[in-house]
Amino acid sequence: MRLPLLSNNNQSIGVFDSGLGGLTVLKSLETQLPNESFIYFGDTAHVPYGSKSIQTVQNYSNQITQFLLNHNVKIIVIACNTASSVASKLLRNKFDIPIFEVVTPSVKQAISYYRNGKIGIIGTQSTIASNSYVEKIITLSPHIKTVQQACPLFVPLIEENWHKTDIAKDVASIYLKPFTRNHLDALVLGCTHYPIMETIIQSIVGASVKLISSGPAVSKVVKKFLIENNLQNDSTNPKVEAFFVTDLPQKFDELGSQFLGRSLKNVNHIKL
Amino acid sequence: MRLPLLSNNNQSIGVFDSGLGGLTVLKSLETQLPNESFIYFGDTAHVPYGSKSIQTVQNYSNQITQFLLNHNVKIIVIACNTASSVASKLLRNKFDIPIFEVVTPSVKQAISYYRNGKIGIIGTQSTIASNSYVEKIITLSPHIKTVQQACPLFVPLIEENWHKTDIAKDVASIYLKPFTRNHLDALVLGCTHYPIMETIIQSIVGASVKLISSGPAVSKVVKKFLIENNLQNDSTNPKVEAFFVTDLPQKFDELGSQFLGRSLKNVNHIKL
Repeated sequence: MRLPLLSNNNQSIGVFDSGLGGLTVLKSLETQLPNESFIYFGDTAHVPYGSKSIQTVQNYSNQITQFLLNHNVKIIVIACNTASSVASKLLRNKFDIPIFEVVTPSVKQAISYYRNGKIGIIGTQSTIASNSYVEKIITLSPHIKTVQQACPLFVPLIEENWHKTDIAKDVASIYLKPFTRNHLDALVLGCTHYPIMETIIQSIVGASVKLISSGPAVSKVVKKFLIENNLQNDSTNPKVEAFFVTDLPQKFDELGSQFLGRSLKNVNHIKL
Repeated sequence: MRLPLLSNNNQSIGVFDSGLGGLTVLKSLETQLPNESFIYFGDTAHVPYGSKSIQTVQNYSNQITQFLLNHNVKIIVIACNTASSVASKLLRNKFDIPIFEVVTPSVKQAISYYRNGKIGIIGTQSTIASNSYVEKIITLSPHIKTVQQACPLFVPLIEENWHKTDIAKDVASIYLKPFTRNHLDALVLGCTHYPIMETIIQSIVGASVKLISSGPAVSKVVKKFLIENNLQNDSTNPKVEAFFVTDLPQKFDELGSQFLGRSLKNVNHIKL
């Protein structure tokens, strides 16, 4: 991976997502990298990316990456599954900055848990239809068997704050039924919202199945990269954090704090 | 209401929505006005409008109205509840063409059914938060009591094709519980998706409650206007129909045909 041309260890890490789901990734990054500063970009005017065309998502991702570069970030983490799948290659070709995405780290972690059963993948309609997780698994380990399932109602259930209700359990039981008939070694939560429903998902698929979330998986890769390339923040200045959103959605504070585990400060509303 | 400056009875009627939900309105318009031609615009690249800011929705609505005017429509029907609530006044001030919206006709019909009980309103989070239906009712009939409830899971349930399942019944029972404690005269379905769940909704609120959908309500008003102003299509040429979408969503055909009651032809993908 290319190193930043004008790298400065004390620059921020840029993180972007179509909306607020990527805050679960930011939360993991903050835990793994407590000395780093972050700029989070949520494209809330265009959320969800999952139902948009590849070209449209590439176009938005391109503009956001340019915005983050203008804000002098040292690396970029694509916290969105859809953008990771359809735009990461294009962005890496175009921009001279290390760009991380969430699909590959989750897949590598899943493969490390593989014990001759199957690897399951759940995600939004578009993530599953894109086949991006399965293709990545096949590229890395062609012998591994996979089974996947779209769970389109999980995001609205979480955003309605119903993710601990009986309705959520019933919905999860229907979606996850295909997995209970298979011996799963690991289940990839291929959507940044899903860690919020981790307890219910684990209870349905069984305690022996390793659940893999985007946030912890990509955070380990980012940490390793910063250490190996001596790019860790070594400043004694207080760390900086800023949030940029393209539209202020309803329930922004409520949802955001649920995803991030604390209240959001320094939120800026901007136009691309 | 202003008459079109360059009116020609055989011009099309423009209909727009944030996505595909407005096809339920188009379906009603087609039934009421079988000789008219239609241009339907679904802003699928920006759907849903409900979670966007007022300014953003006004901006999109403005661009779509300009697009429809460039396609020489004789009148415009805003089939989107959010755009009806936040953009119709602005568009009427700016453009010299008759513009219809879905809130006022539904409200007038609800008031006509009022028998000293209450009028209920259901809609998306943003429609209910905007208070647009309640305010319109109060403006027209200040003595009428209202009760409203956001039902954010209805749209994803319908888009998942789960609207006839037990899950949908359970979700509807929770949302509609406030209404079963009130004596409702009428219930406004303040979202163009909701007619698809009409049977379940009616079974929960009871057969005596009149359900009011945007499509039939606005279609009657449009028909009356065309007759009174002698603007009906009198051509013997075959009627024309065209669909414009800003992004081709997944399940476009499946969902579109469910909303419209038949398959969609002549669908054009354009950029605003």
